[in-house]
Amino acid sequence: MLTEAEKEVLRVRLRRIGGQINGIEKMLDEGRYCVDILQQVTAARAALNKVALLILESHAKSCLVAAVQQDRANEAIDELMDFLDKFTR
Amino acid sequence: MLTEAEKEVLRVRLRRIGGQINGIEKMLDEGRYCVDILQQVTAARAALNKVALLILESHAKSCLVAAVQQDRANEAIDELMDFLDKFTR
Amino acid sequence: MLTEAEKEVLRVRLRRIGGQINGIEKMLDEGRYCVDILQQVTAARAALNKVALLILESHAKSCLVAAVQQDRANEAIDELMDFLDKFTR
Amino acid sequence: MLTEAEKEVLRVRLRRIGGQINGIEKMLDEGRYCVDILQQVTAARAALNKVALLILESHAKSCLVAAVQQDRANEAIDELMDFLDKFTR
Repeated sequence: MLTEAEKEVLRVRLRRIGGQINGIEKMLDEGRYCVDILQQVTAARAALNKVALLILESHAKSCLVAAVQQDRANEAIDELMDFLDKFTR
Repeated sequence: MLTEAEKEVLRVRLRRIGGQINGIEKMLDEGRYCVDILQQVTAARAALNKVALLILESHAKSCLVAAVQQDRANEAIDELMDFLDKFTR
Repeated sequence: MLTEAEKEVLRVRLRRIGGQINGIEKMLDEGRYCVDILQQVTAARAALNKVALLILESHAKSCLVAAVQQDRANEAIDELMDFLDKFTR
Repeated sequence: MLTEAEKEVLRVRLRRIGGQINGIEKMLDEGRYCVDILQQVTAARAALNKVALLILESHAKSCLVAAVQQDRANEAIDELMDFLDKFTR
């Protein structure tokens, strides 16, 4: 479960990424050089990666810990591994 | 150089990604389960990846081809490899 | 802690990856087409990715669970997140 | 087409990766800590990534340039994009 403070950090990051996405569209409109645009897309992707890791950490420290304490560790870890399998391809 | 048609395709994709980003923030506000949110972040990241590949393809078929024809192939390929080194880490 | 059975599964996978690496070198010697060689390198990288996920799963189901039970959850999760930060770049 | 010199550089890198793979198996046998093993797997994966980029660069500077000069640019770039689509997922 994400705390309100964690959610606020994520909201700020998500809005910044939204701004990056708008910025990329502006670069298209301005006819900017492709490689410069590609670097901005890479930066936005890295920022999204970081959002995922922050959510993952919060999930591990709350839901996963709770699952271990309630003897549901394997079920929770299997769920996490399914996600990581897709996320790390 | 991106053609106007290519730009339009990219604009549509970028706005869809913007919508995904807003959707992720809504999931935070609704207190949705972390792993469900993580799947949406992964989807948005994959969509950004596709935007990069579309720009890369257009760049290769225009700027890189022009560079080869003007005997500047290595310079253009070095620039591309710099980008790919960061993009594929 | 990896069980002996888990280690055996990993040994088989690692030897297969070793075989893939040797196969790639043979393709170089035979002057095979670059893109065909690149596909083999991508396959070996995916196989390595899978080895990492198997080790990660075993670690989570043993060491991480033990850490939670011994009230060292955050320390163990921080360690895991450090790894994931590098692994998912 | 890879030059003999490029092949030699790649052979050295591939043998080093083979050594890393053997080293990982030894860590399993020695019962080393999972996270330490994971770091070695990540390092081997990064080394494989570098091998792919070196082959890609050589391919671009030889086969792709030749394709442009023979008016087969789009065909060669489409082939490259197919590879990059799989490689960057």
